Amino acid sequence: MASSGFEQKKLASSRHYPSHSFAPSAPTLPPEPYEKQQQQETETYPYNHHGSPPSHGHYGQHPPSSYGQNGFPAGTNPYVVRAFEMVDRDRSGFIDENELQQALSSGYERFNIRTIRLLMFLFKNPHDSLRIGPREFAALWSCLGHWRAIFERFDRDRSGKIDLMELRDALFSLGYAIPPSVLQVIISKYDNGSGRRVELNFDSFVECGMIVKGLTEKFKEKDPMYTGSATLTYDSFMSIVIPFLVAYD
Amino acid sequence: MASSGFEQKKLASSRHYPSHSFAPSAPTLPPEPYEKQQQQETETYPYNHHGSPPSHGHYGQHPPSSYGQNGFPAGTNPYVVRAFEMVDRDRSGFIDENELQQALSSGYERFNIRTIRLLMFLFKNPHDSLRIGPREFAALWSCLGHWRAIFERFDRDRSGKIDLMELRDALFSLGYAIPPSVLQVIISKYDNGSGRRVELNFDSFVECGMIVKGLTEKFKEKDPMYTGSATLTYDSFMSIVIPFLVAYD
Repeated sequence: MASSGFEQKKLASSRHYPSHSFAPSAPTLPPEPYEKQQQQETETYPYNHHGSPPSHGHYGQHPPSSYGQNGFPAGTNPYVVRAFEMVDRDRSGFIDENELQQALSSGYERFNIRTIRLLMFLFKNPHDSLRIGPREFAALWSCLGHWRAIFERFDRDRSGKIDLMELRDALFSLGYAIPPSVLQVIISKYDNGSGRRVELNFDSFVECGMIVKGLTEKFKEKDPMYTGSATLTYDSFMSIVIPFLVAYD
Repeated sequence: MASSGFEQKKLASSRHYPSHSFAPSAPTLPPEPYEKQQQQETETYPYNHHGSPPSHGHYGQHPPSSYGQNGFPAGTNPYVVRAFEMVDRDRSGFIDENELQQALSSGYERFNIRTIRLLMFLFKNPHDSLRIGPREFAALWSCLGHWRAIFERFDRDRSGKIDLMELRDALFSLGYAIPPSVLQVIISKYDNGSGRRVELNFDSFVECGMIVKGLTEKFKEKDPMYTGSATLTYDSFMSIVIPFLVAYD
């Protein structure tokens, strides 16, 4: 288990969330050495409480760049392109949740279909239904590379799993100060009733991280000045929360 | 499909949610004739935007009343007691989600385990984990009786299913004015991709209704004056939403 360098008081602060979207930079796969990932990740996730303007875009809406003939951003690692094309057998340029599960498993472990659905929900074009294209796929792949680096950094005993305190520290390092009671609720999801300490593999870590990130980004849209509070109408509250519940089904 | 008597404008209003909890009165089962249910339900769910103080309690926390030796509120229909005792084979006084699924199927249809989990989450004692006792079971049973009456009232063509507009009218009659875009998202959950109009059976109706009711009650706690807006800290936002996501897993 990791010892924590953060004070409980800090964790209770609600002004601590980052402004970075997971826009793809250079894709990180095939998996790179730990040191390189760590360095890259440190550059990608600065603590940024009050700095640059928050990115409000949907996960899949990264800054425009040039696109190749196959629809991928210029410079996309051919490995990523191949992973996509392998499963897009009808060459439609889009893949569904089962194909996504299969495509990602060439670079990562096989994710639970629940995690896949959540990723689809967060990355797909909001106007498209239940499928993603090359651009979103590249962004997702790159994002998972970042989460992998975080996972490895905070899995300090290299057990391949992270526990509650490591999860807390990992999320905190990304700027998410989650109340301890909420963290307990999140992690209870993975409690198999054996009485043993709950630990998350990478799949579950991504699931937790994406829930936290997704909800935080939505909240931030309502709190552009980073005050830690937001005034929501009933309509906007329901409009934020219900899609998460439905996506997560 | 039901024709709607409500204006779109009214539906867009966010000040329209009820203050009633689903505290058990006389249990409604074995199923009663439609007319009687309808009358009872009309008494139970007045439109109440600004009137009596909102009930902030957890679903299972209904007003205290006297309890029999078996832990059920005095006057509980013996049919309900029997349904509980049939599945509580070890006489522990508590039942888990699978037992609840079985117990409810003696009076209602067999609910999807997802609906059952949501019901457990909403009705269980917040300090207890993953099980409910006689008191919560009686409240849940009674609540389902109310939802059944609503379902039958708004299933105007008696098809055994309700569609989007009927769902909207049903929720509106309970005081929940859900934005049309959110209703669309909710109902998309039940779209099997056949291209046919989506219709909900009672199970799915209860699931939708409980999500709406559960989230609305949480929102109301932050909006005690019924202004239609609430200021939430990041912590309280996450504390409200994450348990729903986890319960719903």
